[in-house]
Amino acid sequence: MTQNIYDDPAFFSGYSRLGRSIEGLDGAAEWPALRAMLPDVRGLDVVDLGCGFGWFCVWARAQGAASVLGVDVSENMLARARAVTQDPAIRYVKADLEQIDLAAGSFGLAYSSLALHYVDNLDRLLETLRGAVVRGGRFVFSVEHPIYTAPAKPGWIEDAAGRKVWPVDSYLVEGPRETLWLTNGVIKQHRTMGHYLNALLRYGFAISHVEEWGPSAAQIAARPELADECHRPPFLLLSATRT
Amino acid sequence: MTQNIYDDPAFFSGYSRLGRSIEGLDGAAEWPALRAMLPDVRGLDVVDLGCGFGWFCVWARAQGAASVLGVDVSENMLARARAVTQDPAIRYVKADLEQIDLAAGSFGLAYSSLALHYVDNLDRLLETLRGAVVRGGRFVFSVEHPIYTAPAKPGWIEDAAGRKVWPVDSYLVEGPRETLWLTNGVIKQHRTMGHYLNALLRYGFAISHVEEWGPSAAQIAARPELADECHRPPFLLLSATRT
Repeated sequence: MTQNIYDDPAFFSGYSRLGRSIEGLDGAAEWPALRAMLPDVRGLDVVDLGCGFGWFCVWARAQGAASVLGVDVSENMLARARAVTQDPAIRYVKADLEQIDLAAGSFGLAYSSLALHYVDNLDRLLETLRGAVVRGGRFVFSVEHPIYTAPAKPGWIEDAAGRKVWPVDSYLVEGPRETLWLTNGVIKQHRTMGHYLNALLRYGFAISHVEEWGPSAAQIAARPELADECHRPPFLLLSATRT
Repeated sequence: MTQNIYDDPAFFSGYSRLGRSIEGLDGAAEWPALRAMLPDVRGLDVVDLGCGFGWFCVWARAQGAASVLGVDVSENMLARARAVTQDPAIRYVKADLEQIDLAAGSFGLAYSSLALHYVDNLDRLLETLRGAVVRGGRFVFSVEHPIYTAPAKPGWIEDAAGRKVWPVDSYLVEGPRETLWLTNGVIKQHRTMGHYLNALLRYGFAISHVEEWGPSAAQIAARPELADECHRPPFLLLSATRT
């Protein structure tokens, strides 16, 4: 089972104070880029894997999705998500992405924001999605970027000349990374870019677009602290099409 | 025009002493992985973009390619390549990859080893290949990995704990990088992974396989100095199919 750090009180308390938790989709700097990679959701049945507070589910429905299924392992997250909407076409289900089953041919769009790097058995999930996403349907997701997750000790350091650099090591050594993020002992799975891409190809998806996200000039102007993110992308955004 | 560093006497002298120059394909540690990504070349018309000493051209012909066109900008390289074979089905042509023209529908396989990171106008070359590679044909190539080319100052450093790390900065800042490799002032073009992948998609190629190359356990056992390459991949190997 995936570590369910979101039901850890200290973690959940910290997470709830993040911009992306308070402001919703617009509080996530990568959202405009991810949104641009989505198909027109009008009339689509959509699943959101790791839906959290359900911001995307509500957005997709407002854009005209026929139905939205939000899946999350965290009771805390689902309780908040359920409190926000009474729309019967939005359904929230508690499930572990390691073990989830989805009915065959049931979705035109599978979406996931910053959840898959918690999943240990990615192959099993992709096998499920191969069946669950209709041919021509899309799978659009974000994960922490492999350059971001690779280091044994993530965090900016200075080189001898005083330049800020991101200390990459162990990039090709895939597997768990224990990090300090809001609380101690958060476990993420480090995978290479090639791993994500080849796994999609192996499970019946064609690669449609790859975005190594960094802030736009306008975003840096508004929030200068984002400039460092140009040195190494924090997020990988992928769009794939079921063939 | 691409910088033609290979006709610089100091560079050429150094390059000629590398394992990959003396031993041919088997002197390149990434060759087994790149070979595994190739289609069966029997009966195919093949073009090698940046053919160097022609090792791959001779290999492809020995494997049964119908014809092989080797292209390089360096007279030094082509002179050596021509000296090695009298096979009329292998032809060597001097051309700059920035400006090359290739007849429409003339190749079943386009190949390139460690040349495209010298090319400034990658879009133009891909536009040429979109026409030159037959539908269902393949484009298989290697380049220096974007993690390898990103740093303003490439080279291992130690962090505060004495761990060897690769100092990534400027990853999202694409463009020329001047490095010291065999001689001063070698200009390479840094592009992100996403850039290579999206450019292929834009010019009519589907992504078939992505390999961020690192040494195998057997290769490390034979050459322990290769172990560092697991910390950050030196090469990116890509296989794409003309759709």
